[in-house]
Amino acid sequence: MTTRRASPNAARRNEASRRATLTAAFDLLQEVGYAKLSIEGIAARAGVGKQTIYRWWPSKGAVVFDAFLLLSESAEGGPPVLPDTGDLEADLTAVLLATIEELNDPRYDQPMRALATEIAHDPELAAAYAERLDGPLKDAKRQRLRSAQQAGQLADDLDLDVAVEMIWGPVLNRWLQRSGPLTADYIDRVITTALNGLRPRPPAAG
Amino acid sequence: MTTRRASPNAARRNEASRRATLTAAFDLLQEVGYAKLSIEGIAARAGVGKQTIYRWWPSKGAVVFDAFLLLSESAEGGPPVLPDTGDLEADLTAVLLATIEELNDPRYDQPMRALATEIAHDPELAAAYAERLDGPLKDAKRQRLRSAQQAGQLADDLDLDVAVEMIWGPVLNRWLQRSGPLTADYIDRVITTALNGLRPRPPAAG
Repeated sequence: MTTRRASPNAARRNEASRRATLTAAFDLLQEVGYAKLSIEGIAARAGVGKQTIYRWWPSKGAVVFDAFLLLSESAEGGPPVLPDTGDLEADLTAVLLATIEELNDPRYDQPMRALATEIAHDPELAAAYAERLDGPLKDAKRQRLRSAQQAGQLADDLDLDVAVEMIWGPVLNRWLQRSGPLTADYIDRVITTALNGLRPRPPAAG
Repeated sequence: MTTRRASPNAARRNEASRRATLTAAFDLLQEVGYAKLSIEGIAARAGVGKQTIYRWWPSKGAVVFDAFLLLSESAEGGPPVLPDTGDLEADLTAVLLATIEELNDPRYDQPMRALATEIAHDPELAAAYAERLDGPLKDAKRQRLRSAQQAGQLADDLDLDVAVEMIWGPVLNRWLQRSGPLTADYIDRVITTALNGLRPRPPAAG
């Protein structure tokens, strides 16, 4: 709790500076990449004092993280929810197609790589990411699978955490390691293989 | 083909310098991380001239890459092969346990993160990695699955590339994104889920 409160005008100005900083950070990430991103550069682009940025964020990694948080906030109102039409395969396909569209978009590819590789090297950022950005998304994924499980479409004893990783892990890994193209056909094959499993399946009765 | 050959003594000296350079690069990666790794530092540690290193490698990324290649060369003689006892689940478990032992080992964790994140940012390095380091390993993984497929243990129409990603992708992704611990129990759950699939399976007849 703060004991001193900013006046409404000051609060508005602070919020405007915060948003300008985060937007500038995201734009610069696309243009110059993470290695060349600097607090100085962000301050100049945002028209905000360098000291202001240092007062609010301990590092450029923290600024970048909040820039992603702002992006996910503005995209939707409440916590993320996956579509649930009752057709699991169709819903997963729609979600993963949207994911690869983003991953294949040069505007997002570079910033998202920067975030992913910073997480790989920074356990603190990884914990913040898991809690604030990836956590709500993973809840939504698990929730969609749970609903399919309750409808009898997924195995009763399925480990939902592992099931989520089974569907999203290969796609993220292929993107990050550049080990193959992310296409609609690939998405189909991942979903089919994850749902059916590697072992032979007897033809469904009835 | 080279038209001029070094004398046997010079060739031996070159090979010794090459190995000293790659060993120094790998050791320094563990100690200082990729960002602080420099050709100067490698040269000093290896007792090799900076110019010699620049003559053989265009960048520190290329040195690091060859350090990993040396590591994989010295570990085994020919191309990698996965164990094949006829029991697919046991063989995959043995291989993945060895993988997470390496990923959980601080001596390897940092250098492998450096390689993985360099690949994420450098398409040329990613292509070299796919061809020279990951390629032979993926062939071995596909080969093990193909042998299980021929034994009727895997589905006839299984996409072996996707199947390989289904088993290894979640593990690599969890490690790189630090999204959970890599334990023997986790490995069991990944293998079981990948083999059985997410959908309910009727109990096997007979």
